Amino acid sequence: MVVLENIRESADVKKLNIEQLNLLAREIRQEILNVVSANGGHLASNLGIVELTVALHAFLNLPQDEIVWDVGHQCYAHKLLTGRQAEFATLRTYQGLSGFPKPHESPADAYVAGHSSTSISVAVGIAQAAKLQHIEKRVYAVIGDGALSGGMVWEAMNHGGDLKTPFTVILNDNEMSIAENVGAMSRYLTRLRTDKRYRRLKDRVTQFLLGKKKWGRTFYHGLEHLRDAVKYFLVRGVLFEEMGFVYLGPVDGHNIAELLQTLKMAARIEKPVLIHVITQKGRGYAPAEQNPTAFHGVGSFDLATGETKPKGRTYTDCFADKLCELAAADDKIVAVTAAMPHGTGLEKFSAEYPERFYDVGIAEQHMVTFSAALALRGMRPVAAVYSTFLQRAYDQLMQDVCLAEAPLVLAVDRAGVVGEDGETHQGLFDIAMLRAMPNMTLLAPRDALSLAPMLEYALSLGRPVALRYPRGEAVTLADYPPKPLVQGKGEVLGEPDGAQVGLLALGDMVKPALELAELLAERGIPAAVADLRFAKPLDEDLIVDFAQKYGRILTLEDGVKAGGVGEGAAELLQARGVKADLLAAAFPDEFVAQGKPAQIFNKYQMTAETLLPRVLRRWFKE
Amino acid sequence: MVVLENIRESADVKKLNIEQLNLLAREIRQEILNVVSANGGHLASNLGIVELTVALHAFLNLPQDEIVWDVGHQCYAHKLLTGRQAEFATLRTYQGLSGFPKPHESPADAYVAGHSSTSISVAVGIAQAAKLQHIEKRVYAVIGDGALSGGMVWEAMNHGGDLKTPFTVILNDNEMSIAENVGAMSRYLTRLRTDKRYRRLKDRVTQFLLGKKKWGRTFYHGLEHLRDAVKYFLVRGVLFEEMGFVYLGPVDGHNIAELLQTLKMAARIEKPVLIHVITQKGRGYAPAEQNPTAFHGVGSFDLATGETKPKGRTYTDCFADKLCELAAADDKIVAVTAAMPHGTGLEKFSAEYPERFYDVGIAEQHMVTFSAALALRGMRPVAAVYSTFLQRAYDQLMQDVCLAEAPLVLAVDRAGVVGEDGETHQGLFDIAMLRAMPNMTLLAPRDALSLAPMLEYALSLGRPVALRYPRGEAVTLADYPPKPLVQGKGEVLGEPDGAQVGLLALGDMVKPALELAELLAERGIPAAVADLRFAKPLDEDLIVDFAQKYGRILTLEDGVKAGGVGEGAAELLQARGVKADLLAAAFPDEFVAQGKPAQIFNKYQMTAETLLPRVLRRWFKE
Repeated sequence: MVVLENIRESADVKKLNIEQLNLLAREIRQEILNVVSANGGHLASNLGIVELTVALHAFLNLPQDEIVWDVGHQCYAHKLLTGRQAEFATLRTYQGLSGFPKPHESPADAYVAGHSSTSISVAVGIAQAAKLQHIEKRVYAVIGDGALSGGMVWEAMNHGGDLKTPFTVILNDNEMSIAENVGAMSRYLTRLRTDKRYRRLKDRVTQFLLGKKKWGRTFYHGLEHLRDAVKYFLVRGVLFEEMGFVYLGPVDGHNIAELLQTLKMAARIEKPVLIHVITQKGRGYAPAEQNPTAFHGVGSFDLATGETKPKGRTYTDCFADKLCELAAADDKIVAVTAAMPHGTGLEKFSAEYPERFYDVGIAEQHMVTFSAALALRGMRPVAAVYSTFLQRAYDQLMQDVCLAEAPLVLAVDRAGVVGEDGETHQGLFDIAMLRAMPNMTLLAPRDALSLAPMLEYALSLGRPVALRYPRGEAVTLADYPPKPLVQGKGEVLGEPDGAQVGLLALGDMVKPALELAELLAERGIPAAVADLRFAKPLDEDLIVDFAQKYGRILTLEDGVKAGGVGEGAAELLQARGVKADLLAAAFPDEFVAQGKPAQIFNKYQMTAETLLPRVLRRWFKE
Repeated sequence: MVVLENIRESADVKKLNIEQLNLLAREIRQEILNVVSANGGHLASNLGIVELTVALHAFLNLPQDEIVWDVGHQCYAHKLLTGRQAEFATLRTYQGLSGFPKPHESPADAYVAGHSSTSISVAVGIAQAAKLQHIEKRVYAVIGDGALSGGMVWEAMNHGGDLKTPFTVILNDNEMSIAENVGAMSRYLTRLRTDKRYRRLKDRVTQFLLGKKKWGRTFYHGLEHLRDAVKYFLVRGVLFEEMGFVYLGPVDGHNIAELLQTLKMAARIEKPVLIHVITQKGRGYAPAEQNPTAFHGVGSFDLATGETKPKGRTYTDCFADKLCELAAADDKIVAVTAAMPHGTGLEKFSAEYPERFYDVGIAEQHMVTFSAALALRGMRPVAAVYSTFLQRAYDQLMQDVCLAEAPLVLAVDRAGVVGEDGETHQGLFDIAMLRAMPNMTLLAPRDALSLAPMLEYALSLGRPVALRYPRGEAVTLADYPPKPLVQGKGEVLGEPDGAQVGLLALGDMVKPALELAELLAERGIPAAVADLRFAKPLDEDLIVDFAQKYGRILTLEDGVKAGGVGEGAAELLQARGVKADLLAAAFPDEFVAQGKPAQIFNKYQMTAETLLPRVLRRWFKE
């Protein structure tokens, strides 16, 4: 690390020559490999963007100029170049460096990121604020080709292209989003990439004119009318040009000299510019180059072989297997994902039933409404999506699913605590979100055994239904084989004689509830335990029954308290005039930072061990 | 109504010749004018689309074929042609015909609509379901040019263009969304509209080939490679063509013969097609032609003069005036709207401060994130948006505003009951939505007097804040001039001696709470009344204080109960160990249909008169 170790801040990068910049890129790549192989993280995208990051730091004046990283998981090189080398080994660990841009962590991180397709909106806003305040500032949105399928990008380009305030979109085209890229836009980019005939001529003309200082620029801008006329010959990125952007590229994203030259050219154009940069995901690490999807987000792995540690059977696996089994017997079942066939486990389905599988791209709004229409026209769609990304489709869920009464099944993966991805990815809001929607049913399995029957039940329900389950290895509560499901009914798991408190848990929280009951029993306090099963509709009779019998009830849910099951139960007791004590265990009104799930549950007193003192203090005066 | 009265169902339209179809269009236009001038409704868009609707019914086989109306407020002619003439006079009234497509009303209404930019997703879903089930069906999405700024359209075109399953997008280009159109896309459409040089040649070639039956079609499809080469000369709608759509047009949307010819041509193309139709908003009614924005959504008006009845001063007016006043003293204040300068009252601001005003188009996601970036870079943006449309930006609010801690002010208009627009437009979910978001502050003024200081307070807060206020005339509670605002603190309006119940009301519900207190007082039951002011953070001390002092509290809010203030208060009492009775008055877990707001509040027992028996029954055994 000859070069990297001397980079204390972005300005240090500007002092290097091309040779040193290339060496710096190699060192960064090695450092990323070292830390990600130990901590896990987003590997392929970070390896792909090293030279582009180095070129941006060599060209820009940070933090006066600003880089807005779309999605943000490709910011590792950026972090290494902005004073965070020392902490880089703590990447994605509890209280360590975030795997995403975080303005609280460094002023070099322009904006919070984590969800796709927001960067152009942010860049337009930053550029506009600078213009209104007469601040000199260059703004760059760095966005992957996959993120272009997100509609918000078009909203922002439509506005930004119209405003005409200069800023630059860097399209980091690695020919895939997380999985292989899909959609018409992807085909379009392929045509742009492969057609070099016009490109060379156009680049030469542009470069010639912009190289001529003032008269060249004047001439270039004066050429607009002529350009319009010959646009369809000269200009390749006509789709972007029609949106008001000057298109430059494609550029080799691993050639720092070419990148610097193009950045220089773009900076001379006093309009919105889009630079089309071609990069390779996983660049420089053979296992990731060969299988970038598997190395998109990884746990720790063996650097020499690229082998990841074998994982136990996850909820995602349980879901994927059961869906394939059900699809074998029912050809109406179709599966839909928004660019997450791997993460949601639908790869298996797509291989077995390719004609019944849809990857719509990073486009959760369309995913939901498209699936709802399929559902209302005789198919049985299952749309699998992470809880945090489902937030993108709130209105579509409300209007096109719930109001339209579309019998869509949502498989809400990564619900609850997700761990190392931190604030932007926690699945803590879906309960509050979906509970407020009329006509919705929200289910949560307590373990591996209960997921499969719940999915089957959801598909049979004939109304909007969501099934939420957490990230990671599935627990198995072998002592509690699931009973058949009845709409809106929970399942009592234990009611010992003389029980003094009733525990009502949802999904993932059933296991700690059972453990808490054991801890209480050890202290001579028998506790009844029930699995709520349904977050909506709530099993009102069960809640009232426990409240009346035991006088004290504890609700447990892995979501925010506001709008959650605990609040619903508290209001229910009031509405029914039941006098009982209620303690609602849920996540508080704050964003939950990264860490291992166990660390997070512990911090928020959501484990049996940490709940015990809360219960004892409240009701048993210990 | 010589022709119209004989149209019992869509099939009857197919029997008419061109002359009769034109007469039918004139009669429909007259009928729409008659009913909308009496009932209010969406006028300009419905007058503009009459001939297109007639042509679709003359060409298609409904309901086997399907028309998906984007936004849906332009469906009046469609309703008149599908067996709903008799009820048409009940349009938009309580228990009458909906002003939007409603499958529960008629199988001719393919899908629920109300919010913009969803139709292509629905059409892709319907077309795909038909394909999977081998059903012969033609699917048409009719979408305005304004709706193209909504990102969901691009998500759907990206997917639909890639799937290649034939369906037709009819772009109803009236050169505006609700207000004047904005954005790069709008400029692009203008170029398409005005450039006739290539259009004629292209139309002739296409028409010639497709007219030649099989060999022509084979030749047409075979020409694709050649077409690619000359596309930039021959084909105008290259932006749509790049997305995988065959572009036809522009077509005169008031020429039924030309429309029929184009529909016929499109039906022969076995790919996704986009037909670009030019229409005129307000067509055939001079006042609406001259001022389509004012006649977008109107109350009842005088048919002869076009004059609407004068309205009282609305909350929107209060907001707009105060914002302009504050902007005079602070040049950091900017205003942002998503295509609603008229409805949100920002027209005034845009006239006074054009350089600080942004209309981003129908693009709520971008609106929120763009505004958040402005806020974090030194400006003081106020984004004004209807409650129901804010649902489109749930994730952006969560991540780009709340997590990013952007000091953005959201002016949430049409919060609560909106009345005649019905289910799709009620603003009943914003409390639940925003209460779950960490870092958010949610305010609601009780009357005209309290709105202005709340807006000023919101702008001074330096953190994410939303201010929700209802549609329509503002009430003035002159006896209760607002006291200065303190973060998270309500305002006690009356605590009579011997009060036996405490009423805690939010925003619009303060007036009925005060009236209820009077009705209770008449029965010898003194009641304390407080204005909560903040839905988030809740004034916990106030709630606890009332609960402890009076033992009985009634919360009142014009939003859904799930996730609302009442649930929050119920859980709070439990958390603080306060033994008190609570009754939560809020809207139940269902979609609320159209009607006058008074009818709706009455139906849901949310007026003083209807709450009285609920309170007496619960606590005073009458």
